[in-house]
Amino acid sequence: MPSKPLRIAVVGASGMVGRELIFLLEKRCFPATDILLFGSGKSRSRMPFRGRSIPIQPTTLPALAQAELVFLTTGDSVSRELAPILAQKGTWVIDDSAAFRMDSKVPLIIPEINAHSLSLNKRLIAGPNCSMAALAMAIYPIYEKFGIRSIRAATYQSVSGAGKAAIQELKDQTYSKNPSRPKALPQLIAFNLFPQIGSFDRNGYTSEETKISGELKKVLGTSQLHVTVTAVRVPVFRGHSIAAWVGTRRRVQPREIETCLQNSPGICLSRKNKYPMPIDIAGSWPVYVGRVRRGESDQEVLLWIVSDNLLKGAALNSVQIAEHLLKRGWLWK
Amino acid sequence: MPSKPLRIAVVGASGMVGRELIFLLEKRCFPATDILLFGSGKSRSRMPFRGRSIPIQPTTLPALAQAELVFLTTGDSVSRELAPILAQKGTWVIDDSAAFRMDSKVPLIIPEINAHSLSLNKRLIAGPNCSMAALAMAIYPIYEKFGIRSIRAATYQSVSGAGKAAIQELKDQTYSKNPSRPKALPQLIAFNLFPQIGSFDRNGYTSEETKISGELKKVLGTSQLHVTVTAVRVPVFRGHSIAAWVGTRRRVQPREIETCLQNSPGICLSRKNKYPMPIDIAGSWPVYVGRVRRGESDQEVLLWIVSDNLLKGAALNSVQIAEHLLKRGWLWK
Repeated sequence: MPSKPLRIAVVGASGMVGRELIFLLEKRCFPATDILLFGSGKSRSRMPFRGRSIPIQPTTLPALAQAELVFLTTGDSVSRELAPILAQKGTWVIDDSAAFRMDSKVPLIIPEINAHSLSLNKRLIAGPNCSMAALAMAIYPIYEKFGIRSIRAATYQSVSGAGKAAIQELKDQTYSKNPSRPKALPQLIAFNLFPQIGSFDRNGYTSEETKISGELKKVLGTSQLHVTVTAVRVPVFRGHSIAAWVGTRRRVQPREIETCLQNSPGICLSRKNKYPMPIDIAGSWPVYVGRVRRGESDQEVLLWIVSDNLLKGAALNSVQIAEHLLKRGWLWK
Repeated sequence: MPSKPLRIAVVGASGMVGRELIFLLEKRCFPATDILLFGSGKSRSRMPFRGRSIPIQPTTLPALAQAELVFLTTGDSVSRELAPILAQKGTWVIDDSAAFRMDSKVPLIIPEINAHSLSLNKRLIAGPNCSMAALAMAIYPIYEKFGIRSIRAATYQSVSGAGKAAIQELKDQTYSKNPSRPKALPQLIAFNLFPQIGSFDRNGYTSEETKISGELKKVLGTSQLHVTVTAVRVPVFRGHSIAAWVGTRRRVQPREIETCLQNSPGICLSRKNKYPMPIDIAGSWPVYVGRVRRGESDQEVLLWIVSDNLLKGAALNSVQIAEHLLKRGWLWK
């Protein structure tokens, strides 16, 4: 390991993804010599890291510029403000927001799929939408081996995808005698569900559905793919599930798909009528796939996909990107 | 109205569907001169009907044979035991179980779709699977007008579809400090979901998925249709939702589909980014459809369908069948 100092920063350190990210950096022994934590400055708090208690400081550009690598885990607006300036100055920025994902100058990276798109000259790197990450991981091995012409996906997305306030909202609506009105989410979520994540476009698709479709094509590096999604919020705390129909270019048997998935990194396959569930996989790193079965022809296969939206869908993927930069020796200026 | 007596019987009177059925018979002024209620005989209870308190008696064939029309709202095994004998004796039997739905000699009826399949000589009539009923209602007008070649459906099914014990299980797991293990459902359901309703076949499909597919083709009277389903149980008390991809034979615009659905009996259409949710439609009779939008080509449309599984999915459909028999003057022996 190099002895040069490596400072990393996490913006949004007390958020859902920020906390997981700090935990993962420690757990996966990321060789940072120092970690700087940033927040909105509204609340003064601290977070543990390698046995130390690190203060969360208000986010400012000069303070951030001290780091070689900055993780942004806040919303689109903060990323839009900070990311380009930092990257311009030579700081590596791994951005978890949707702000730059579809920017043609910014690589959108899922390391198992397109680490080759990382470049020394592109210091702003986008991480994927949480549902898209799981879907992409599950279909990529199939895409590579058999070709894919179409994807249809119905999602079952947990409230943690909408942040801490949404988790509190589900708890409150479930347990409080006088629950407050929906605020973090657009509708009542306790014992209910609704097909709206984000805002609607003029074709009737939500921004979440459009993100999944657009990002999937970008990560795979193709426009020759039909992707249609119905994204649904469900009363689950953590873990996103997806029922997917995958139309392949080549004829393929479910068993061949299973073998293909079984041999793919980051995928955990359930066979023989076993299936993953959100409650079982929360806190786990892989993307879980089960119920692989034949669709309407031998050019279609159905999958059931479950993944921790805060981990492979966000924090874990960001750390994996950082690990790739590290491996290439790019992190030191 | 004829002055001849018309006795009807409800088997499973204290169950989820039985209660709704008794309520609907009163609400829709079904002209029964008498109602007989039957149960397992385990608990002695009564149910209100038109201001009277009717005792629930143990189910016996001689007692049932007093009725001109028997509603069966219990499981497959009770239906298999009672239905053929009663129908043989000339009693009309409307069976809500899955026991006879795929029997070629038994009509499977959703009145808005195939009331024409009712016959004076076929006294045993099957009602549909609850998810299938909603799906069939929503796609039938499209099928008639534009033709359909394929249906792909991901379901979001509430616990009431699995009976009272499953409702209690969701409550218990949500609110009890020491919740009991899953019993009515195969997995923990509170803040969780799982893609298993029924048992698995050798192709990896569950019995629920196979039912939806098989029954849909039977109700539409076609084998020229590909139907693939992923059926998922979600922590919602009442109301089943479906994300559907409908592949049409003719090219069609979403607006044409909306106009077609708007003019169809039993359908309530949400336009302009409005959508139905289980919590809003519980207790309502129609099948609700929203988020009609273009799929991967102009021969595919996406729908969001929500319906009360206990009503159009069960009790309401049975009462509607009885109303058709009544209208034709067939109910009197």
